[in-house]
Amino acid sequence: MRVSTSSSYAYLGPEGTFTEAALLQVPGAESARRVPASTVGAALDAVRSGSVDAAMVPIENSVEGGVSATLDAIAVGAPLRILREELVPITFVLAVRPGTALEAVRRIGTHGHAWAQCRNWVDANVRDAEYFPTSSTAAAAYGLVDGDGSYDAAICSPLVAGRLGLTVLATDIGDVTDAVTRFVLVGRPDALPPRTGADKTTLVIPLPEDHPGALMQILDQFAARGVNLSRIESRPTGQFLGDYFFSVDADGHVEDARVADALKGLHRISPGLRFLGSYARADRRTPAVERHTSDDAFGAADAWLGDILEGR
Amino acid sequence: MRVSTSSSYAYLGPEGTFTEAALLQVPGAESARRVPASTVGAALDAVRSGSVDAAMVPIENSVEGGVSATLDAIAVGAPLRILREELVPITFVLAVRPGTALEAVRRIGTHGHAWAQCRNWVDANVRDAEYFPTSSTAAAAYGLVDGDGSYDAAICSPLVAGRLGLTVLATDIGDVTDAVTRFVLVGRPDALPPRTGADKTTLVIPLPEDHPGALMQILDQFAARGVNLSRIESRPTGQFLGDYFFSVDADGHVEDARVADALKGLHRISPGLRFLGSYARADRRTPAVERHTSDDAFGAADAWLGDILEGR
Amino acid sequence: MRVSTSSSYAYLGPEGTFTEAALLQVPGAESARRVPASTVGAALDAVRSGSVDAAMVPIENSVEGGVSATLDAIAVGAPLRILREELVPITFVLAVRPGTALEAVRRIGTHGHAWAQCRNWVDANVRDAEYFPTSSTAAAAYGLVDGDGSYDAAICSPLVAGRLGLTVLATDIGDVTDAVTRFVLVGRPDALPPRTGADKTTLVIPLPEDHPGALMQILDQFAARGVNLSRIESRPTGQFLGDYFFSVDADGHVEDARVADALKGLHRISPGLRFLGSYARADRRTPAVERHTSDDAFGAADAWLGDILEGR
Amino acid sequence: MRVSTSSSYAYLGPEGTFTEAALLQVPGAESARRVPASTVGAALDAVRSGSVDAAMVPIENSVEGGVSATLDAIAVGAPLRILREELVPITFVLAVRPGTALEAVRRIGTHGHAWAQCRNWVDANVRDAEYFPTSSTAAAAYGLVDGDGSYDAAICSPLVAGRLGLTVLATDIGDVTDAVTRFVLVGRPDALPPRTGADKTTLVIPLPEDHPGALMQILDQFAARGVNLSRIESRPTGQFLGDYFFSVDADGHVEDARVADALKGLHRISPGLRFLGSYARADRRTPAVERHTSDDAFGAADAWLGDILEGR
Repeated sequence: MRVSTSSSYAYLGPEGTFTEAALLQVPGAESARRVPASTVGAALDAVRSGSVDAAMVPIENSVEGGVSATLDAIAVGAPLRILREELVPITFVLAVRPGTALEAVRRIGTHGHAWAQCRNWVDANVRDAEYFPTSSTAAAAYGLVDGDGSYDAAICSPLVAGRLGLTVLATDIGDVTDAVTRFVLVGRPDALPPRTGADKTTLVIPLPEDHPGALMQILDQFAARGVNLSRIESRPTGQFLGDYFFSVDADGHVEDARVADALKGLHRISPGLRFLGSYARADRRTPAVERHTSDDAFGAADAWLGDILEGR
Repeated sequence: MRVSTSSSYAYLGPEGTFTEAALLQVPGAESARRVPASTVGAALDAVRSGSVDAAMVPIENSVEGGVSATLDAIAVGAPLRILREELVPITFVLAVRPGTALEAVRRIGTHGHAWAQCRNWVDANVRDAEYFPTSSTAAAAYGLVDGDGSYDAAICSPLVAGRLGLTVLATDIGDVTDAVTRFVLVGRPDALPPRTGADKTTLVIPLPEDHPGALMQILDQFAARGVNLSRIESRPTGQFLGDYFFSVDADGHVEDARVADALKGLHRISPGLRFLGSYARADRRTPAVERHTSDDAFGAADAWLGDILEGR
Repeated sequence: MRVSTSSSYAYLGPEGTFTEAALLQVPGAESARRVPASTVGAALDAVRSGSVDAAMVPIENSVEGGVSATLDAIAVGAPLRILREELVPITFVLAVRPGTALEAVRRIGTHGHAWAQCRNWVDANVRDAEYFPTSSTAAAAYGLVDGDGSYDAAICSPLVAGRLGLTVLATDIGDVTDAVTRFVLVGRPDALPPRTGADKTTLVIPLPEDHPGALMQILDQFAARGVNLSRIESRPTGQFLGDYFFSVDADGHVEDARVADALKGLHRISPGLRFLGSYARADRRTPAVERHTSDDAFGAADAWLGDILEGR
Repeated sequence: MRVSTSSSYAYLGPEGTFTEAALLQVPGAESARRVPASTVGAALDAVRSGSVDAAMVPIENSVEGGVSATLDAIAVGAPLRILREELVPITFVLAVRPGTALEAVRRIGTHGHAWAQCRNWVDANVRDAEYFPTSSTAAAAYGLVDGDGSYDAAICSPLVAGRLGLTVLATDIGDVTDAVTRFVLVGRPDALPPRTGADKTTLVIPLPEDHPGALMQILDQFAARGVNLSRIESRPTGQFLGDYFFSVDADGHVEDARVADALKGLHRISPGLRFLGSYARADRRTPAVERHTSDDAFGAADAWLGDILEGR
């Protein structure tokens, strides 16, 4: 799909999550239809069914969870394609209803991951506060407005706090400053996003046989073509113990000759692999390409071999 | 540490979690002191400080989360060692206070992961039920007994339902039958668990340089010695984008010559690697060892080279 | 060139060498024009200049030498192509002028390599015989007929002994029974010999850089495509010490997809490589081809990637 | 053996060969007993039987042949060790008996390899001269003094021309200026030559199985330890077609940790390998050793693993 202002998007909700913040970074998304989904699977199903054009879901290190769920949900079922990735700074605020003072905070609502990351601040500043779990940081904020008073403060994103008119008592209360989470926009197979020179290709590759060297054989398809990997993860297939697939991010676009060649090599040894998309890197980092893996080198080799086959 | 009846253990709590179920599988743990911890980090800190002998924490696919947390928490800080692993079947039940009928269930408390895995059953059987998030499945069960009536049923483990005298309205309500989750018992460095012939070695290996082939060089240390990997995961170091370490499980025990040799090779190319333990595999699977990677082959090669160095 | 009855051939002479015997194994060569050349270089130059269609020269283990000369002479200069290979059994006879008895043999003429291989027989049967060097085994036989009586017996091939009407006093006098030497027929670039399923491809590959791993990178182009090597030899380039090229024979024909792909990979890392021909193996051995390196696997991978690039 | 002034040496004779020139480069050889042998095999047998301490034989590119013979002869039979290598500049002179003018030269005696290398000079300067083969260049020179007048000039080394008092009509008449040939001094197994930092290790390695990847597995033992190869040659075992061994020269001394480790790896996969010696390189080139393959890195890895095995 072409990302345009007329698009409609699902995202891991509710409104005000970091995932919605990631979606709002997509050009045109602010004025598009945006549909919160309760799970990553539901968001992807909305894409598969055609009820939306694409879905924004967390893919790495999310404080909102859903990472394994995302990898596994893309790996099976009707084919999907990653269209772009977004990096979102993760900063937490302590938000209250207007009028509540820090001293009055007794119970704090938030998601478990956010709670874990803000424990040090809480221990130092609202020592006796109890934890009240919510299904997301955004849900905690909404609960302050709509809820039954189960808690009197929320740890949430600045986005949702501002949107709901909550009072922010403290900002940047997470342990990790400069934390960044990665999200991906997922659509249906269609024309590929254009090659930018700083791209990433995501693949799911079943391990053809389980023996020492089988993984090497897979990785050699990348290394032999000078294609760097920025992420690799083995995942049990769930069928029985000992069977794995690999989820990897490779530097480059499938329209780069070296990446195309690596993918063909992978298809030969593991024909069940799944191409999940080539798309621009959010960090715009350009990979170093050696001469012998450049498009020119591939073109020259093709021409040379063509001459031989024609008897020249 | 030697696991004995006099030991004391921390575990990711509260009481009644699948993690406690994993701990109870350890011989002698039933009669030992067992201390619930609110996070994986807290459980491991209790080991580091010496207040307990070991801690049971989830390491893979847990419905109780904590997986990345476990990997990252072991990877840094004072050295820890994995002493054994446990596989626990993950089965969910729908539990209520005695006297509650299925028709009366309006809100269901549980952890988000468990909710996701039981949605199909809920949609088919208690269609209109709302979700009430709790910090763990066990917390949901406790909330039924102690709580303020925010929800009237819990999705939890059979262990905690039985322990609290709750009524089980339905069993095996998760989507995935035969789901199994892996837990590890973590202690302080001490004499290694004995080699059993069906062992696993866990390592954390920083990527020495980020270029195509650097990962291959690491994996070749295993492949060249016929050592299979059953898990690999790249993890960002958190320091800055683009820096990675690898968390891997390798077949075999560090007292196997092929594993020892692979570890020495890894140390040479990535001296910052961390040995997290050699321990018996929970599934008792014995790896196929080729003649040329057997202890005998290593012994014969050492003897042969010794002769050469002495001029024979 | 198409090998036909109207062809003309050069060969490492003089008449009656094992090389001529190899040439006579080529269909139609018996009735073709056959031109002896004094050196391998002269035979190949006759091809390059167009004065003959092809030349038969020794390529491996020859008792007539010329092996390094052949490899080096093909590696440089105007391009040549190996069209076929021939295996010739190497059996030596002791030949004399009619009427000479074994007891009368005082001096034996032959090529140094043949002398070395027949020393045991000579020591046991004509103990006091002296060695008289000749430039080839055939030259020794001719010398008996034309010569000045410098020696009274020749160690030579059965072919030349029979052709000159010499008396054979003993057969199979070499140390190595079943010795076989390999020869190649060399022509100018033209349509490739047809793929037979039991083929060989010969290449000259300059080492792009001299460091550990550079040779591995070259050989990986073959191994990664399941292409076996039946010969490898490093040769100094002669320009300065430490610079090498590799001369290799690979199993398969350049029209096999796996070989074509390996050659393209080689061209990318060492663009100066030289293709010396794909031709039927003299021993007719068919290589085992794994599914993932078959033409079918290459075709399926191409089709799969084509779909991706077109957005399907 | 320790090379000393009291040593006795065999060499590929007769007196005055380039091989004797190589031997005379060995400190103390000039005053030692020097025994010419008629073949490489005979020279090596003299070492095996103990009748001499060591033998100098050609190993690469020799104009006097014997290269394959040397490789094969060292590869089998009672173990031998290469003790040092010598590089000898190969320069040819045209020598005659005193009083013979260039115009009077009708026939030229020399070894076939030397004849091939001087053909251009001969064609330009003594155009009508015929070739008279001799068993070595030195034999050609001796033949001028002792012979029956079969030829009136010899192409030989400056050494033998000077020693026999022949008149040199032209020097440096070979095509290749700066040609260098390599020779090795071979003894019986004894204390290793000392490590100099610029050493070479020669090995004979049977191919354990004939499949794509078997050669890679062998070479990976070197590459994985950063050990460069300066020569590799596959040689048929002679038993039947398709069985090979490899003759290689590796940079470094067996007392270098990286070389020792590579040799142990080779022994595990091909226990029939033969160690032919570690000795100083004639060209004194020091290999670049990366940190991770240094003795220090090996020592640090051993210490690190030792700690783990002892429970630290």
